[in-house]
Amino acid sequence: MASGGFNPPMLHLHQATPADWGPRAAAHIDEILIDHAHLEKKAASTALTLLFRYPDEPALQRPLSALAREELSHFELVLDHIDARGGTFGKAFPSAYAAQLSQQIRRAEPLRLLDTLLVCALIEARSCERMKHLAEALPAGPLADLYAGLLASEARHHTLYVDLCEQIFAPAEVRERLSALAIRESEIIAALPREARLHSRAPA
Amino acid sequence: MASGGFNPPMLHLHQATPADWGPRAAAHIDEILIDHAHLEKKAASTALTLLFRYPDEPALQRPLSALAREELSHFELVLDHIDARGGTFGKAFPSAYAAQLSQQIRRAEPLRLLDTLLVCALIEARSCERMKHLAEALPAGPLADLYAGLLASEARHHTLYVDLCEQIFAPAEVRERLSALAIRESEIIAALPREARLHSRAPA
Repeated sequence: MASGGFNPPMLHLHQATPADWGPRAAAHIDEILIDHAHLEKKAASTALTLLFRYPDEPALQRPLSALAREELSHFELVLDHIDARGGTFGKAFPSAYAAQLSQQIRRAEPLRLLDTLLVCALIEARSCERMKHLAEALPAGPLADLYAGLLASEARHHTLYVDLCEQIFAPAEVRERLSALAIRESEIIAALPREARLHSRAPA
Repeated sequence: MASGGFNPPMLHLHQATPADWGPRAAAHIDEILIDHAHLEKKAASTALTLLFRYPDEPALQRPLSALAREELSHFELVLDHIDARGGTFGKAFPSAYAAQLSQQIRRAEPLRLLDTLLVCALIEARSCERMKHLAEALPAGPLADLYAGLLASEARHHTLYVDLCEQIFAPAEVRERLSALAIRESEIIAALPREARLHSRAPA
């Protein structure tokens, strides 16, 4: 997906983010950046966890390794922006979004793998959508450019996770489960506290 | 360190690997490659673990993120060689070397960070030394080239871990602890079983 038009159905999101999220989040951009840096690091870590858990799934190895590398390069990029603005990167507070999404993952294999790949796909999709809102709400400049540049990667990662899932599981099963998880994802994010985070309700 | 001369004291290793290790390991190169792929992935994971544990140490963030990216690109490279030889990557058996080295890490901070960085430095040093042996023992060709190419990265990673440690701790304390851990590392690896692994005694 190019950074031009944004098409939620393509990303399998059930419900779009309310229009006021972008301007409200953009007003807290320094907090958003720190949260974002942690999210890139966490995305790399999740891909690596999958590599450790499933060494016997050849389809996952190189793509998830390359994805983790890209998330880490984005982590470094976001740190550069935090530094340039005089911010300080430090400890993260646990994310209710990730915790509640993880609860949707069924425990027994191979369903655990199916669900984990699709939860990762939905997190990437939501990140993409939120970055699009930020890119539009931020004043023209390095941060608007940062988000306009990154959202295409997030869309690509969304597609990668869905594609990997369809290489391992029956596509019909993948689509059905993805729809169900997308509904839960929209319910979860709509009920989160108002906070300056990429995956929460808009700060007040 | 260039891939030309090899200088154990520069890498802070207490005891050099016996000369027969290279030819004996080279005779089991397909097993060594699979072990090696796991080690690259593990090295990335360890760097990421440090990023999660110490978000408040600015000196660690970008260097360890970049190091993790490089380890992952080596993981992918080694997978390519395994594939090219018709091998199959799969589950790893736990490494007694890593487990016994981890037992040397003191539990209380900041000593835990000091020791972890130096244990990582020593693992990179030993990897470098072993890769040099492999590069020399393997017949001229893609695998000898692989190891001749990678050993310089391992030496660089060794130096990076020691340098990061000296940015956070007093250099004299770092040198003293590094010497002590290097003695233990040499004792540990000399007492491991004979196995086709990068960090074990030579296979019989």
